[in-house]
Amino acid sequence: MHLYDSTIPSGNAYKIQLLLSHLKIPYKTTSLNIVSIPSESRSAEFLVLNPNGRIPTIVLDDGTVLAESNAIMFYLAEGTKYLPDDKLERARVFQWLFFEQYSHEPYVAVCKFRTYWAPGGFDDLTEREIKKLRERGQDAIDVMEIHLSGREWFVGDDYSIADIALYVYTSAAEAIGFRVEGHVRAWLERVEKVEGWVKIKKDPTGKCPS
Amino acid sequence: MHLYDSTIPSGNAYKIQLLLSHLKIPYKTTSLNIVSIPSESRSAEFLVLNPNGRIPTIVLDDGTVLAESNAIMFYLAEGTKYLPDDKLERARVFQWLFFEQYSHEPYVAVCKFRTYWAPGGFDDLTEREIKKLRERGQDAIDVMEIHLSGREWFVGDDYSIADIALYVYTSAAEAIGFRVEGHVRAWLERVEKVEGWVKIKKDPTGKCPS
Repeated sequence: MHLYDSTIPSGNAYKIQLLLSHLKIPYKTTSLNIVSIPSESRSAEFLVLNPNGRIPTIVLDDGTVLAESNAIMFYLAEGTKYLPDDKLERARVFQWLFFEQYSHEPYVAVCKFRTYWAPGGFDDLTEREIKKLRERGQDAIDVMEIHLSGREWFVGDDYSIADIALYVYTSAAEAIGFRVEGHVRAWLERVEKVEGWVKIKKDPTGKCPS
Repeated sequence: MHLYDSTIPSGNAYKIQLLLSHLKIPYKTTSLNIVSIPSESRSAEFLVLNPNGRIPTIVLDDGTVLAESNAIMFYLAEGTKYLPDDKLERARVFQWLFFEQYSHEPYVAVCKFRTYWAPGGFDDLTEREIKKLRERGQDAIDVMEIHLSGREWFVGDDYSIADIALYVYTSAAEAIGFRVEGHVRAWLERVEKVEGWVKIKKDPTGKCPS
């Protein structure tokens, strides 16, 4: 298996790295510079693999290409303990995967990118835009806090790809100015104790601590 | 089954209405006013059902609540011809569902909402923000045009929930100023001939034609 990620540590790519570590599946990596203009993920060569020009993208040994971090996780997790068999529990996993990509990532991940890597940081955004990023990101983390009250994991009784999806950017949230409260904090610590958990890769630019 | 949708026609709710029509499953509807401030989807009563305060949300006959349009479609379609059994084809369906929610809906659906229903339309956005909505929405439709070259449906040989997800806002795209080319246009027409296809509900405000 070949994973295309980015030279700077991408939370979306980290999802795949975490799951592959849990599953003990070996893989090769090609890291694209997504901070350059144009991004290496928009090169003619890469667009043949993924016309949407985004990482993570994986290429299986038979040449099959899959994109979208949460769809890749679904493919890798089906039939393993990281995705429940029960139809309703699976649907709940997907509910949280879509929540992550629609209500969480576009705010928390964008704040992370702008804090550490975007030239000029938040400077080219209006105050209203910055407020929207901050408020909606916080709203998402607050929804997680409510959901985790009295629960160990997002769906059912076990750690699943729903937890992985929500962990990758939430673990960076406090350092970039979001409020992270007790239930979310305890859940982040639980995730970090799951067998096979690995840290996100080091930032070669040195801008992002961790 | 009970479907919570909005008084104005929501493409995300339309996904569920289309699929339930294909599946011939009867259901009841409660329509919330999501244009009011605050939106009725943020009422204390509704937040108990869905703490993320969004429609569509469904309540099954046993009281089970599910949110996120594409996760609801997954739940309803599993075991039917609208979601493939093959593991790789399923993953490809999910790839397109995540593409829709991350790269398409936040641009095309937001342009639709602002064109017809937002007080002031695009007036409170900067030119850069409007350009971003327009360009990224067009990028998504262009990715679809490339993918549909030589293909009838998004995944495999059959119509699936990937087609439903991408159909609901793409069918409105040309009327709100996006460029829709041959392969996408022909695919839209194919979708409208699938047995059980129904039109999106009428806009009670009369602002959106169709």
